[in-house]
Amino acid sequence: MKHSFGSDNHSGVHPQIMQAIIEANNEFATAYGEDQYTKEVLHKLEDLLGGNCTAFFVFNGTGANIVALQGFLRSYNSVLAPASAHINVDECGAVEKISSARIIPLETTDGKVTPQQVKAGLTGFGFQHHAQPKILSISQPTELGTLYTPEEIKELADLMHSHGCYLHVDGSRISNASESLGLPIKEFISDCGVDALSFGGTKNGLLMGEAVVIFHRPENTLPDSNGIPMNMLNMEAAKNLQYLRKQTTQLYSKSRFIAAQFNEYLTNDLYLKLAGQSNSMAKYLAESLKNLKEVEISKPVESNAVFAIIPQWLSEELHKKHYFYVWDEQTNEVRWMCSFNTTKEDIDEFVKDVKEIISRH
Amino acid sequence: MKHSFGSDNHSGVHPQIMQAIIEANNEFATAYGEDQYTKEVLHKLEDLLGGNCTAFFVFNGTGANIVALQGFLRSYNSVLAPASAHINVDECGAVEKISSARIIPLETTDGKVTPQQVKAGLTGFGFQHHAQPKILSISQPTELGTLYTPEEIKELADLMHSHGCYLHVDGSRISNASESLGLPIKEFISDCGVDALSFGGTKNGLLMGEAVVIFHRPENTLPDSNGIPMNMLNMEAAKNLQYLRKQTTQLYSKSRFIAAQFNEYLTNDLYLKLAGQSNSMAKYLAESLKNLKEVEISKPVESNAVFAIIPQWLSEELHKKHYFYVWDEQTNEVRWMCSFNTTKEDIDEFVKDVKEIISRH
Amino acid sequence: MKHSFGSDNHSGVHPQIMQAIIEANNEFATAYGEDQYTKEVLHKLEDLLGGNCTAFFVFNGTGANIVALQGFLRSYNSVLAPASAHINVDECGAVEKISSARIIPLETTDGKVTPQQVKAGLTGFGFQHHAQPKILSISQPTELGTLYTPEEIKELADLMHSHGCYLHVDGSRISNASESLGLPIKEFISDCGVDALSFGGTKNGLLMGEAVVIFHRPENTLPDSNGIPMNMLNMEAAKNLQYLRKQTTQLYSKSRFIAAQFNEYLTNDLYLKLAGQSNSMAKYLAESLKNLKEVEISKPVESNAVFAIIPQWLSEELHKKHYFYVWDEQTNEVRWMCSFNTTKEDIDEFVKDVKEIISRH
Amino acid sequence: MKHSFGSDNHSGVHPQIMQAIIEANNEFATAYGEDQYTKEVLHKLEDLLGGNCTAFFVFNGTGANIVALQGFLRSYNSVLAPASAHINVDECGAVEKISSARIIPLETTDGKVTPQQVKAGLTGFGFQHHAQPKILSISQPTELGTLYTPEEIKELADLMHSHGCYLHVDGSRISNASESLGLPIKEFISDCGVDALSFGGTKNGLLMGEAVVIFHRPENTLPDSNGIPMNMLNMEAAKNLQYLRKQTTQLYSKSRFIAAQFNEYLTNDLYLKLAGQSNSMAKYLAESLKNLKEVEISKPVESNAVFAIIPQWLSEELHKKHYFYVWDEQTNEVRWMCSFNTTKEDIDEFVKDVKEIISRH
Repeated sequence: MKHSFGSDNHSGVHPQIMQAIIEANNEFATAYGEDQYTKEVLHKLEDLLGGNCTAFFVFNGTGANIVALQGFLRSYNSVLAPASAHINVDECGAVEKISSARIIPLETTDGKVTPQQVKAGLTGFGFQHHAQPKILSISQPTELGTLYTPEEIKELADLMHSHGCYLHVDGSRISNASESLGLPIKEFISDCGVDALSFGGTKNGLLMGEAVVIFHRPENTLPDSNGIPMNMLNMEAAKNLQYLRKQTTQLYSKSRFIAAQFNEYLTNDLYLKLAGQSNSMAKYLAESLKNLKEVEISKPVESNAVFAIIPQWLSEELHKKHYFYVWDEQTNEVRWMCSFNTTKEDIDEFVKDVKEIISRH
Repeated sequence: MKHSFGSDNHSGVHPQIMQAIIEANNEFATAYGEDQYTKEVLHKLEDLLGGNCTAFFVFNGTGANIVALQGFLRSYNSVLAPASAHINVDECGAVEKISSARIIPLETTDGKVTPQQVKAGLTGFGFQHHAQPKILSISQPTELGTLYTPEEIKELADLMHSHGCYLHVDGSRISNASESLGLPIKEFISDCGVDALSFGGTKNGLLMGEAVVIFHRPENTLPDSNGIPMNMLNMEAAKNLQYLRKQTTQLYSKSRFIAAQFNEYLTNDLYLKLAGQSNSMAKYLAESLKNLKEVEISKPVESNAVFAIIPQWLSEELHKKHYFYVWDEQTNEVRWMCSFNTTKEDIDEFVKDVKEIISRH
Repeated sequence: MKHSFGSDNHSGVHPQIMQAIIEANNEFATAYGEDQYTKEVLHKLEDLLGGNCTAFFVFNGTGANIVALQGFLRSYNSVLAPASAHINVDECGAVEKISSARIIPLETTDGKVTPQQVKAGLTGFGFQHHAQPKILSISQPTELGTLYTPEEIKELADLMHSHGCYLHVDGSRISNASESLGLPIKEFISDCGVDALSFGGTKNGLLMGEAVVIFHRPENTLPDSNGIPMNMLNMEAAKNLQYLRKQTTQLYSKSRFIAAQFNEYLTNDLYLKLAGQSNSMAKYLAESLKNLKEVEISKPVESNAVFAIIPQWLSEELHKKHYFYVWDEQTNEVRWMCSFNTTKEDIDEFVKDVKEIISRH
Repeated sequence: MKHSFGSDNHSGVHPQIMQAIIEANNEFATAYGEDQYTKEVLHKLEDLLGGNCTAFFVFNGTGANIVALQGFLRSYNSVLAPASAHINVDECGAVEKISSARIIPLETTDGKVTPQQVKAGLTGFGFQHHAQPKILSISQPTELGTLYTPEEIKELADLMHSHGCYLHVDGSRISNASESLGLPIKEFISDCGVDALSFGGTKNGLLMGEAVVIFHRPENTLPDSNGIPMNMLNMEAAKNLQYLRKQTTQLYSKSRFIAAQFNEYLTNDLYLKLAGQSNSMAKYLAESLKNLKEVEISKPVESNAVFAIIPQWLSEELHKKHYFYVWDEQTNEVRWMCSFNTTKEDIDEFVKDVKEIISRH
């Protein structure tokens, strides 16, 4: 298919990334991440994030989130997450199955949760009949394309820490967040107190490959809600994530091929350049449509997704030529996702089609 | 590193496979295996295996085995497997964690199990205090490089079926088995009554990618040990493996890139050619060393592994220049693994080094 | 404590039940339910329920529900349940941990769900990213003291069956339902198409002991949502529940002591007499208070619970002398639970105290 | 049945224990162990064990062991246990299912493991492909009726602690061990460094009821194999066992009825008196048979079990009149278990029958 607004994983692999894979395909290398090359690239990633952390490569986003969360969970704990979170909606119950913990969904309209909404889930501590809250998982950007400010993330991290709990960020599109905020990832993740990050790559031009990052938090010396000093659990998670990765079937034998992709991805800010393209295309698309009375841009366009409420006849006609998802069948809200390789021409053609359908109606 | 006898996953990607990946990197494609291309390649694989089956792509061998087994297991079941099986030894407890079932290890000296040894594990049916046997998992070739004959596999399948149980084959090196036996996979898998196959690729020149194959067994109409007609459980497994794959974090978004590899792999018998190279190199290596009194070839060389018992001083000296594993520290049995890209020159150099060390001793 | 409105498990053991335990304490008996006595009592229970079923004793209600549900669940399935269900609220995540499946909570105001509300959860069939709905669990009476009519239960069972799904009834207070409806349990459970029942005893005068009952449903021959004929899965559940009970730590060695209680419980309708007492005391309490303007009976009084919204000063004063729970802190809704040994005098004294506090205010 | 040598759970309830239950059946009490009475009895038990511990009541032995072990396990850990351990042989895979960890069985001939045998399982630390050893579970007395000396237990505890691992004792018959050793439980459990104890009651005259005891180990400040200071994990286990108990379905609502039994059990050393009876009856039985050349006492008689190898014709004839198990069908080793209510007359009659069968042969 020529172009898809369906998802940023409908796009392929960026040529520089592909070239890096080809170049890594020389000679032999030890497997399972034991090669020096993998270790160096992981250090490069750790440095980018502030250096006070341990990173692990995994295959995909499902794996990244579930491996990361397990580092902090006991079976009697709960994960707080926005109801719209990918881990709550689209993982076929994988979190519950693999971590044995349960998800407590929090209401939200824009994909973000406020401290007030989180507090509603921070209950039942010490009550043996209730799962014990342990970690909040937010997405940056959210599944609805919106962004938390660094202040908002810090406030959530502080709130969780003050209850002996932790903060995980699902960053399957973290590069888009960084580019859109105009801030290094470090400044809205590590500096804000995040305990674990799923660092995405696949949705931004990689063949496949994500990283799980556990932040050391020596400053958090208070006991957590299970009674372990918080900094100690961060260290335990960092030390033992390798076993959880293996058990979760996410240990890749030919690890150098993820390492090579990440090496290229992090070189000369390629990750930001690719995210910049999809972000700007989303803005351009929203800008091009916003004056049409048939199109109501329904969520702030803060990363590479455009959400819009459109008439059903419009989405039906558009579907004949373009690929995208109806997000909410009740309101006919649709999602148009831009990719690293979405071009101005792709947008122009799409907008032309929208206008033509409207004019024909 | 120039060459490694450590493992066949120390090798990289075969050039034709890499080329197929590059060519698949055009335009956009729907994700998660929903694209037509993935479906066609799966059918190609199903046809190769006899057509009476359903195939699913996954990332890696751990995933393939655990997804396959779950199709047949309830938490109160047990998996019989040779004690030397990869699922018993090298998965960090992933089978127990993800399937909730337990493994009953069977004694074996050459990695293969006999019907007699299997029968020892087929006990406790109907006794509520014991996990109920449900499936036997064998590896073809085994982790010790040995092969089952078609007759042996059929006998094991018949034995399991006669107890209302199933047979899984871990085929992470199934191509090596086919090439070495000189038989189409179908003839020693599907035709012999196997219920599920992990079809490997990564260890034979793929970047990454395996397939889980569930065989339909309309002929098995008797109730299994849990009380479900056997053919019905095979169908349930085939129908629902997609959910188990997702939950096990093994669903790949950019599925076309595994499909493209498999397409090339299965075209013009590339999978057999690559296996033929590693198989013949193993034979050549064993042949070249067998007359040295310091080297005792300790397992039949039937695929791409050579096991040998050598003096400790020899393995220590060899380790200075070559990469390989000591398999059994007690007997100093070592494993030399050949890959699709191991060359005659690699072997010659290795043999020369062995002889030189011996002569120096 | 003299009397508690806190819960019907704050009460003790009915004298006849205690006597039955004492009488069972003669000589020796085989363990783990293998004794003839246990089997006979189970048949007595099965007969009461219509005879087309298999019953198993367990220790407690948590165990009964989780063992029952597992009979029908794969890890990729979901359990639909009212948000107010005990399995959703008060089991510390035990369902998710032990069954590996997830709960989809359905909104409800009175503890009951309508077909319309259930349909909202019957989605995502065949979509690999979503947990597959498999069973609905309702409570009869509900945790809010309300009752389903037989027609309502049949409608829910039909709805579930028409989607290839099942219906479980949490009957921790099933005797109260039977007594209040004036119907044999069979008529609103088995006859209505229920697939599994947790049959409670502990909350109605037993020392401890519940039963899990799986109904055979030969008439349901259509494939369920996982592809197995529904009647076959009912049979599989009935056949294999013993293993799930054992794994769930719910197999009692000295089984005769639960059997003896149940034998007495089911003799001369003792279970109904005890339920009749708690039911009528709840009615009497509600009747005695309903004309007080400070007390708003907030849920229909259909079993042995009275829910009421009262002023905070009233509940605080009452707490000084009586034990009961504030159900909803926002509205100050309280729950007064009557037991098999709650007496008219207990109620009169309580009502007197309520009135006195009000008059003093 | 008049008397059974089948198991000590074939016996009933001791009259004093029954009386305690009856007396606890007065008025109302709060549930789920929140009543003052339960707390006091738990303190009494803790005092008996040395005071540096936290105790929890559960229903049965399966529950006790699995709840206790979970306090120390992550899913990637392994439990070392003698191959003959109840948790390995007779729990239908419950440990694997509920803890997600795997059991590594250790060879043993008499049910006891030596430090040498344990060391064979203390491998693979830090190797991501292997489950990480975490806790050793031994039974005192063992399933074969043998006893560890305090020195042996201390040596095992020290060995485990020196590897950052823990020691659990399955004490389903711990009273028999204490009585037989002539030592307070404290002296061979707490004083020897044990981290967790399953304290049995059901097999020694209780209706039902066991306790899980977690020892605080402030002296163990070194990091464990997962990186947490050992004393901290002991405290975490003690603090959070309540949630694991609930999730494992082992929280009893009418807790006072276990508390009352334990109160009586621990008063005036009733637990030792009952154990003394079964122990001495086993000794008397062994003594009475040891001179018969047809009966080979096959295990040291150190608690309430007698193991003997006898001819098949003898066991078959005996089975016509007496209930007992053939432990090993290959050698025709049988187990005769004595109970708190086994009498000298029961033994005499049994011995008479043995002799008569032999003389008739």
